[in-house]
Amino acid sequence: MVSEPRARLRDLGISIGHYEPGALNAITDVAGVAIGHVTCVEGERTRTGVTAILPHSGNLFQDKVPAALAVFNGFGKFAGSTQIAELGEIETPILLTNTLGVGRAIEAINRHTLAQAGNERVVSLNAVVGETNDSRLNDIRAARPTVDEMAAALAAAKTGPVEEGAIGAGTGTVAFGLKGGIGTSSRVAKAGGAAYTVGVLVQSNYGGKLTVAGKPYEAEGAHDKDGSIVMIVATDAPLCSRNLKRLAERCFGGLARTGAALSNGSGDYALAFSTAEEVRRTPERRKAVANYPVLSNDIVSPLFEAVIEAAEEAILNSMTMATTTHGYNAGTNKPSTIHAISLDALKRR
Amino acid sequence: MVSEPRARLRDLGISIGHYEPGALNAITDVAGVAIGHVTCVEGERTRTGVTAILPHSGNLFQDKVPAALAVFNGFGKFAGSTQIAELGEIETPILLTNTLGVGRAIEAINRHTLAQAGNERVVSLNAVVGETNDSRLNDIRAARPTVDEMAAALAAAKTGPVEEGAIGAGTGTVAFGLKGGIGTSSRVAKAGGAAYTVGVLVQSNYGGKLTVAGKPYEAEGAHDKDGSIVMIVATDAPLCSRNLKRLAERCFGGLARTGAALSNGSGDYALAFSTAEEVRRTPERRKAVANYPVLSNDIVSPLFEAVIEAAEEAILNSMTMATTTHGYNAGTNKPSTIHAISLDALKRR
Amino acid sequence: MVSEPRARLRDLGISIGHYEPGALNAITDVAGVAIGHVTCVEGERTRTGVTAILPHSGNLFQDKVPAALAVFNGFGKFAGSTQIAELGEIETPILLTNTLGVGRAIEAINRHTLAQAGNERVVSLNAVVGETNDSRLNDIRAARPTVDEMAAALAAAKTGPVEEGAIGAGTGTVAFGLKGGIGTSSRVAKAGGAAYTVGVLVQSNYGGKLTVAGKPYEAEGAHDKDGSIVMIVATDAPLCSRNLKRLAERCFGGLARTGAALSNGSGDYALAFSTAEEVRRTPERRKAVANYPVLSNDIVSPLFEAVIEAAEEAILNSMTMATTTHGYNAGTNKPSTIHAISLDALKRR
Amino acid sequence: MVSEPRARLRDLGISIGHYEPGALNAITDVAGVAIGHVTCVEGERTRTGVTAILPHSGNLFQDKVPAALAVFNGFGKFAGSTQIAELGEIETPILLTNTLGVGRAIEAINRHTLAQAGNERVVSLNAVVGETNDSRLNDIRAARPTVDEMAAALAAAKTGPVEEGAIGAGTGTVAFGLKGGIGTSSRVAKAGGAAYTVGVLVQSNYGGKLTVAGKPYEAEGAHDKDGSIVMIVATDAPLCSRNLKRLAERCFGGLARTGAALSNGSGDYALAFSTAEEVRRTPERRKAVANYPVLSNDIVSPLFEAVIEAAEEAILNSMTMATTTHGYNAGTNKPSTIHAISLDALKRR
Repeated sequence: MVSEPRARLRDLGISIGHYEPGALNAITDVAGVAIGHVTCVEGERTRTGVTAILPHSGNLFQDKVPAALAVFNGFGKFAGSTQIAELGEIETPILLTNTLGVGRAIEAINRHTLAQAGNERVVSLNAVVGETNDSRLNDIRAARPTVDEMAAALAAAKTGPVEEGAIGAGTGTVAFGLKGGIGTSSRVAKAGGAAYTVGVLVQSNYGGKLTVAGKPYEAEGAHDKDGSIVMIVATDAPLCSRNLKRLAERCFGGLARTGAALSNGSGDYALAFSTAEEVRRTPERRKAVANYPVLSNDIVSPLFEAVIEAAEEAILNSMTMATTTHGYNAGTNKPSTIHAISLDALKRR
Repeated sequence: MVSEPRARLRDLGISIGHYEPGALNAITDVAGVAIGHVTCVEGERTRTGVTAILPHSGNLFQDKVPAALAVFNGFGKFAGSTQIAELGEIETPILLTNTLGVGRAIEAINRHTLAQAGNERVVSLNAVVGETNDSRLNDIRAARPTVDEMAAALAAAKTGPVEEGAIGAGTGTVAFGLKGGIGTSSRVAKAGGAAYTVGVLVQSNYGGKLTVAGKPYEAEGAHDKDGSIVMIVATDAPLCSRNLKRLAERCFGGLARTGAALSNGSGDYALAFSTAEEVRRTPERRKAVANYPVLSNDIVSPLFEAVIEAAEEAILNSMTMATTTHGYNAGTNKPSTIHAISLDALKRR
Repeated sequence: MVSEPRARLRDLGISIGHYEPGALNAITDVAGVAIGHVTCVEGERTRTGVTAILPHSGNLFQDKVPAALAVFNGFGKFAGSTQIAELGEIETPILLTNTLGVGRAIEAINRHTLAQAGNERVVSLNAVVGETNDSRLNDIRAARPTVDEMAAALAAAKTGPVEEGAIGAGTGTVAFGLKGGIGTSSRVAKAGGAAYTVGVLVQSNYGGKLTVAGKPYEAEGAHDKDGSIVMIVATDAPLCSRNLKRLAERCFGGLARTGAALSNGSGDYALAFSTAEEVRRTPERRKAVANYPVLSNDIVSPLFEAVIEAAEEAILNSMTMATTTHGYNAGTNKPSTIHAISLDALKRR
Repeated sequence: MVSEPRARLRDLGISIGHYEPGALNAITDVAGVAIGHVTCVEGERTRTGVTAILPHSGNLFQDKVPAALAVFNGFGKFAGSTQIAELGEIETPILLTNTLGVGRAIEAINRHTLAQAGNERVVSLNAVVGETNDSRLNDIRAARPTVDEMAAALAAAKTGPVEEGAIGAGTGTVAFGLKGGIGTSSRVAKAGGAAYTVGVLVQSNYGGKLTVAGKPYEAEGAHDKDGSIVMIVATDAPLCSRNLKRLAERCFGGLARTGAALSNGSGDYALAFSTAEEVRRTPERRKAVANYPVLSNDIVSPLFEAVIEAAEEAILNSMTMATTTHGYNAGTNKPSTIHAISLDALKRR
């Protein structure tokens, strides 16, 4: 990969929406959320990776978090979907990787969780894995990341600033015919008198007519319409799983505003979870009737708008932070190069 | 309608399942639930009616109750479905009536609710109406019940014992080629150390191979497979809307056990709501983050089983309490008679 | 209503997207589709109406059309939803009206359909009714349109140019704090070598931060976030109900691009149907295994993009064609005025 | 495992329902369907396996088959669900295995499919994997079957009679506290004048109050309510994916009739596909508008009933064919024995 100057969207003087970002303008502004990347770049053909998202640093199987998955176009292999819908929770970390790596990612999550202290007698696990297809730059048929590499992303997860662009699960992805990747953004919004943070992390790999803050971005090659996107939403607001689903769905508003073609082949998924300690489903709370705070339907709308904005900006960050990448197109069996979006062109607008 | 001796299933020495019924073995064992019937029997052709279910006696629009709708086969005209799913609540009474009466039932619920004290500025309402098709005994094209008759059922609602059989919305319905109607049953089950009541009320109008407590009921004419069923579940357990949906779905277990054909033309719906005072969505609670008790996934199963049993028994009560009915078949334009199930045959088994 | 010069978006020199519109740039570019409006403007308080959409001019109950409903945010009272999902078809005309008029609209559709030649023995009907809430300009509690007015819209339906703006179901609606209403647009797109038309008609009544062709529209009062939208998509492409659902969902892409807040209170619905003669479910075809042409998943994407564009433009047409309206706010019990969007401001951008 | 005489339900003189089974009373009565088992029994602790279902013997990725998944209770890890729903098809074989083996099963399907002639440039695959939890007899934490064992089941698939009971994915499963496993059954039903076959294969691992052909089966230990079930439906009828979903849902009718508790922890899934050559989605047909035969809503009901019967009988076959099994309970870390259902007790009834 070429080393070239990269910047986040706001550093180019472009911002999205009206709500304020959190301190890092990242999903990790939601306290406790940790992100880990493993990047696989080898030889001419391997351009892939895996990104881990941990809702909290404890034992997720024991202290489950309320969660929901929204699917706009289900041409994808998202693992864990039906149990999330039925029970309204997740009980493992989340991994993002490439389309043919989902099985290995599940295996890695299972190993990780079974090995955690306190889980010695655990016999059932709902691993959560999202994917997009990086075969335009990566020899996706070659079974990388391995299970061990998947596990390494879980081990590498940390709070604080998030690396973006052609890294982790974004190493080989393509957006609008340009280099996509991992991007993140956050917003702070008030609901019912209290301030909450929503953070979004995306793996961008889709297409359409790229629109940056409302303006078309015209460039040679920026015409591709294929691909997919996975968006992960974290919030510290005490939302029930039903309202987390609605929160997740708002990501598709941000997606649409970037000019997404929403094509047949796009797997468009958004998963939302709440990190609020008081809504965690601990063993004790699960044994009986427990009291949970619930932010009501009537006051949730600011969080919805905040997610639309954060999702749009996270996508654009994934592009402005990604670097031109040379690799291998597994569908055509040829070398390929995907160019980064031009920051100069963006600044000139 | 012929006057003939009728009995509830248990009075025939037949019972369903293992959980104990409540005091009345009726949906009204769930405290506060009120039922109202208006029966329209006129001349040779009018055999229809309407049944009202009120989750509580207060102002439902102001003090909404958590609720969920489950659809097994959606060949029906159930009103209010998408808002129940989105918000997880109902804000009006429920009416059951015939297929072509749904519009008038909505109108009646709207009038009723707009006229309630405290609702002077209400401008949006999600009326909840279920229906089955009574055209095998009723001139369904003739626009009865009227809006006023629909409203009268709301006004007639009362707690305590529930009239069953060929009454209200069950006046003209047919089950397994025999007379169906309104039936109810309840169960008490323990979950997490506390005892809760679940009650089911059905409007039976479907078919298949009738099976009573596991044994086939063979009789001339008992062969019909068409039709639909609406089942309403009330509980005093503090369930969130997601678990209320799962509770509602268990009605289909009871339905299947009666020998239902689950045919293309059957509209099979189940709606569940919680009457627990602490989970009502009052104006005050909706303004902010409020604390709600939640009975967890892990301990809900006894309520699921209780609903399977209560639904099966409610259906059978709707038949054993229904009387032979002479009317008019609007599909064939001919007089018709639908016979009641033979209690003697049931006792002899 | 003030008479002021109004124009469609394209007549202001602004266009949306890349696909070409049909001859009328209207839903009626899809051959056979007919639209009828009844507008109720009386005294100081009545500002409402109803709009009918007929997929074809024949007997819809006999010759059903494949259809699907997509729900982005289900805070609405859309009638007919569960049967459309189950059977993948509609069998009546569609009416759009106000929130509290759904019952009367169902009643009107039932009367209309039962009275059609050939339907003498019809005893079941799935009326399709969408709504938004016009209570910011209309005394919505006052039960207008009446059933007769609803029926009159069905009788008034005609092919050809479509009247837009503050008319029919758009008489009292509000979009982004400005006057919304009825708008329409169409696109022609190629799929699998053949050209197909998609047309969209909307009833706009929602809010957010209005964005016109990517640029924010800033104006005093243009800040409202409440409300809903119903979007109807017609196409002559031979799509199965599953792909019609996906087609309908793409409307939400266009919606998002206008700056929609996608708030809790917004009922966001899109219904799509195919008018292709060869996919109509005629009595003969329904009796047996019939052959239907099906446009496959692999080639459907151009139609998806075309719908995104048409939906966005239909919404903007609903605003540029709407006129400033003086009425009554039923929620506050006060007179109200909602201003039309300024065409001058749009031209100046 | 103890060798003891086993029999299919019909050989005990008990039959379910009214439709005739196919020649083998097995899913393989649907021409072309092939089944493969790999059974892992080693030492004291390994009691697990994998079962493959191939809809046809060709290249499934190239010649996809219409399919649909129905979820009654989604406490499970079924892989491939969202893409099946979106596209209405499957493009790989199906594997059933244990809960913690889903990742390895996906990996095996991917390897198998990527290696098939004609798939050299395939870069995306939607592997379909169902599971239930065999941890009451198997050391499920020990990562068996391996990826190679998963692949061996695909290689072993054959048409003709199907081995049932404690074999393949049924090696370690438990039903109603008794030994469950793999079972199958089929029915022939007429629809629209033609005869079609429906076949069901199940992996039974759930509980409740066991009911055999309507009569309770009472036995010591037969009280367990936990677990899950996966049911696979094949048919040669030309059904679209929407009606395949409805067909799959009817399995839950058969499930309920066996006395299923439908508990929180049960993952209850049913997948249906059509093998009809004329509805296969071949590369040629996918490039354009193609003509497909479609069996209509109006005539599908006999197939629905046939599936209810076949599912119930397949479940009972899974038990009457299963043998008493000694193994290891991974949840309690103790040896365990699960007894087979007593055929004598069944004959005596």
